[in-house]
Amino acid sequence: MTEGAPGGSAGDRFALCDLFANYGALIDAAEFDAWLALFAATCAYHIVPRENYERGLPAGLVYCDSRGMLEDRIRALREANKYNIHTDRHLIGLPRLVGEGGDAKLVEAPFTVYQTDQEGETRLFATGLYRDRIVVEAGGLKFRDKLVLLDTFAVPSLLATPL
Amino acid sequence: MTEGAPGGSAGDRFALCDLFANYGALIDAAEFDAWLALFAATCAYHIVPRENYERGLPAGLVYCDSRGMLEDRIRALREANKYNIHTDRHLIGLPRLVGEGGDAKLVEAPFTVYQTDQEGETRLFATGLYRDRIVVEAGGLKFRDKLVLLDTFAVPSLLATPL
Amino acid sequence: MTEGAPGGSAGDRFALCDLFANYGALIDAAEFDAWLALFAATCAYHIVPRENYERGLPAGLVYCDSRGMLEDRIRALREANKYNIHTDRHLIGLPRLVGEGGDAKLVEAPFTVYQTDQEGETRLFATGLYRDRIVVEAGGLKFRDKLVLLDTFAVPSLLATPL
Repeated sequence: MTEGAPGGSAGDRFALCDLFANYGALIDAAEFDAWLALFAATCAYHIVPRENYERGLPAGLVYCDSRGMLEDRIRALREANKYNIHTDRHLIGLPRLVGEGGDAKLVEAPFTVYQTDQEGETRLFATGLYRDRIVVEAGGLKFRDKLVLLDTFAVPSLLATPL
Repeated sequence: MTEGAPGGSAGDRFALCDLFANYGALIDAAEFDAWLALFAATCAYHIVPRENYERGLPAGLVYCDSRGMLEDRIRALREANKYNIHTDRHLIGLPRLVGEGGDAKLVEAPFTVYQTDQEGETRLFATGLYRDRIVVEAGGLKFRDKLVLLDTFAVPSLLATPL
Repeated sequence: MTEGAPGGSAGDRFALCDLFANYGALIDAAEFDAWLALFAATCAYHIVPRENYERGLPAGLVYCDSRGMLEDRIRALREANKYNIHTDRHLIGLPRLVGEGGDAKLVEAPFTVYQTDQEGETRLFATGLYRDRIVVEAGGLKFRDKLVLLDTFAVPSLLATPL
């Protein structure tokens, strides 16, 4: 792959599947440095309730407009997670190319996240849609803008790990 | 792709993944005209509890034997949905080719559907298996017969959107 | 494909997706002989809570170190299932190649399993991660070692079918 927008070959399609598979797996394994490496050097990461997004309301639950903010957020989450010990499990559906803009592809994928607490109880934590701008950088696919659209405005507990 | 049964190339396999990804995404985005365009000109759409299907009982929850019936049903659902406002989220597993018959391929994929109500509560709504006959029409893959096998006969509330 | 480690072509990638899709579908359809045929002649199958695995504790919920043990286990489950009648539904995420060792590839995939009981109630049964060693045998992909890492040590009821 060359720098710029990802292409449409079989290899590129599998690279896209791998990007999303790695995204969920690295959160679930709490490998946050490797997870951060899935983002482009210049990147953004937002968590917004779907309702707000559809009404054009800017209010988001997490708002990281630069890589520095995202790294800070991850550090804070690691600290918070000491007081809300749980494990995550992401199930991410098949990614779907929905458009192109400049050197990025717009790709959506539905997701569900389950959390298991220290008592061993597993609960549905969140469902939603990733709506991401993806670029080729340093020979691989990276998230330039990751938008996590949550199906509910009522997140049941502390957002102690990324979604 | 030529008219008739879909082939087995990498492009055809991705086209199959895209068909299922689009199917779920378009329901969740309430884009029902685009969703209807995923069906062949001559098509059928049935929702049947798995138990009835396995016992050969014909009783289904939704029974559309033609494109006209399916379009009517979608219109009715849109009306009903005004009184049961919610959003859907489909997670669809990897599609699996299980047979061929005439110019169609028989493809299965497992699914789960979550619904979020106006209070912001997200609940598991249904799990089951798509068991579909898929053809090539107008250069793309289309559902000729979509069979939604529900894992339970006890659907917890009104079927206000397609599954 | 030749005997040994699976390769990286598009066909091989789809074969990997098919292996996981078949794995879940055959359990859900209670086709256990076909399910057993997804394992290599020499194989192992373990179900271990994630916490025990990460701490290096050997205690597992299911421990089959040979094909004979796995076949015995399936026979026992079929008997047990007569007294805990339910159906399963697996949702398995995109498989992810995480390493290679000798003639096997190490592949992970997240999963959720739902169970529906005779009253028609569907519940989340388990979430976790498959962490499998996969080989080419008799021209197809087979599980040599299947490790089912459960997110919880507290399985809510009898393990009456494989996970």
